[in-house]
Amino acid sequence: MAAFDLQSANQRVRDSFAHQGFMKKLGVELRSVGEGTCELALRIDETMTQQHGFAHAGVTTTIADNAAGYAAYSIMPENSTVLTTEFKVNLLAPATGPELVARAQVIKPGRTLVVVRSDVYSIDGDDEAHVLTMLATEMCMMDKPDDKSH
Amino acid sequence: MAAFDLQSANQRVRDSFAHQGFMKKLGVELRSVGEGTCELALRIDETMTQQHGFAHAGVTTTIADNAAGYAAYSIMPENSTVLTTEFKVNLLAPATGPELVARAQVIKPGRTLVVVRSDVYSIDGDDEAHVLTMLATEMCMMDKPDDKSH
Amino acid sequence: MAAFDLQSANQRVRDSFAHQGFMKKLGVELRSVGEGTCELALRIDETMTQQHGFAHAGVTTTIADNAAGYAAYSIMPENSTVLTTEFKVNLLAPATGPELVARAQVIKPGRTLVVVRSDVYSIDGDDEAHVLTMLATEMCMMDKPDDKSH
Amino acid sequence: MAAFDLQSANQRVRDSFAHQGFMKKLGVELRSVGEGTCELALRIDETMTQQHGFAHAGVTTTIADNAAGYAAYSIMPENSTVLTTEFKVNLLAPATGPELVARAQVIKPGRTLVVVRSDVYSIDGDDEAHVLTMLATEMCMMDKPDDKSH
Repeated sequence: MAAFDLQSANQRVRDSFAHQGFMKKLGVELRSVGEGTCELALRIDETMTQQHGFAHAGVTTTIADNAAGYAAYSIMPENSTVLTTEFKVNLLAPATGPELVARAQVIKPGRTLVVVRSDVYSIDGDDEAHVLTMLATEMCMMDKPDDKSH
Repeated sequence: MAAFDLQSANQRVRDSFAHQGFMKKLGVELRSVGEGTCELALRIDETMTQQHGFAHAGVTTTIADNAAGYAAYSIMPENSTVLTTEFKVNLLAPATGPELVARAQVIKPGRTLVVVRSDVYSIDGDDEAHVLTMLATEMCMMDKPDDKSH
Repeated sequence: MAAFDLQSANQRVRDSFAHQGFMKKLGVELRSVGEGTCELALRIDETMTQQHGFAHAGVTTTIADNAAGYAAYSIMPENSTVLTTEFKVNLLAPATGPELVARAQVIKPGRTLVVVRSDVYSIDGDDEAHVLTMLATEMCMMDKPDDKSH
Repeated sequence: MAAFDLQSANQRVRDSFAHQGFMKKLGVELRSVGEGTCELALRIDETMTQQHGFAHAGVTTTIADNAAGYAAYSIMPENSTVLTTEFKVNLLAPATGPELVARAQVIKPGRTLVVVRSDVYSIDGDDEAHVLTMLATEMCMMDKPDDKSH
């Protein structure tokens, strides 16, 4: 495997992230990319709630999945793209916000499949609650452009 | 267990659905509720995409989760609310749309936990593709209002 | 994809099954192999129990996983072997036996990854209870012998 | 919640473990129990293999599930028993052995549901490989004896 190139990983992840319409709709922020890691953040409002007024599981899962995908993509080759094949989440506590942060970390790199753990925290000032934990499998697709417009 | 009351189930699910800000933001339609079943539909657009231009996994997962929750809620008692505790999805094919339909079915009813299968299909005219399959565990919370405003 | 060859699929699955020491230890029987399907059976006894006297989740999961792997393997090429990459199970009811049957069915074939649903039933005369449902991802490894002794 | 009583937790877990026929059949050793933790060990042999000669996924899953259940049971009340409701595993590397160790840790305690992470390592002298990671949901059943013979 080639040495990890942080600048290239950041560039590829940021380019890909910028092509995701759904991130723009939700207002998700790409906080950081490292070697097999990614952090995203989101301020929730009343347009992202379920019936009890907390962030919808679809919202917390979305940022957990996206962080997982980009944690995996950070260590994939240049001429590749990434696809989530499956994930499982346990919902641990109500996501009250107002800020949500997703932190993902590769736990098993592989040439084709990369296994990632991703966790979401609900943050209110100094209070941080662990609201979701995810195990995901990401697939590396070689020689495919990451961006549809290519 | 009390006999299933379709009208009451419909009323409770529609009331709950109407309190979910995230359903409004995405434009999800509640198609039908039955005894342990629920169907939702959604027309996707470029604000719901991932980087390849397909519906984001967060979008397909959101409607699968919501259909699962309401399939379970349909058979829960009047003075209860429903909470998703966990789910797992396999992403089977790109969700190209333009229409997505989620169909959920209870496979194991229980007093506290209800296990549900939920599937998402991408529909384009007569073409229908199976894009996601989910197994979810829903929890019945007794004597809690389903709506935050109570 | 080449036409399905039932005789070859049967032969490959039976050869592979015969190399699994754990199937022998448990006394699992390979009932049938079809195009993307597999059925296994097992009579449980007091050496396979958990603390309540039912079949251990490890036992029901073992036959569900094995049926899933061979359902997938049935549609893989001759010069390949199969590997389970991940699965999720919901335990639906106590596995009282005395007979357990696992039935697996491919729900999404792919060149590299095959998604399979696998269900375990506990059978006592005419009574059949659904005790476990599994979603599994199986991986096709090309040009690797299925048997370690090659 | 009552203060954690290590001696009582150990006693209850060891009593329960001793009633599991399947642990005896496999030769699993209960290494340690702590507040929300459990460690099990197993020496594998050729009666526990899949077709490539590694420990069968059913074997590694069995010890991961059992460690998860007892990690959760350690923090449950005296007059309760524990039931696994669901789990998901990712298989990360071949379990070559000769020793396998499962280490489980509660990540979210709850009155009814307890979420646990459980990991299996394959150990050969000083070499340790991470072979499986599991997320599991354990359920607390109040006023039920843990042992069938009661």
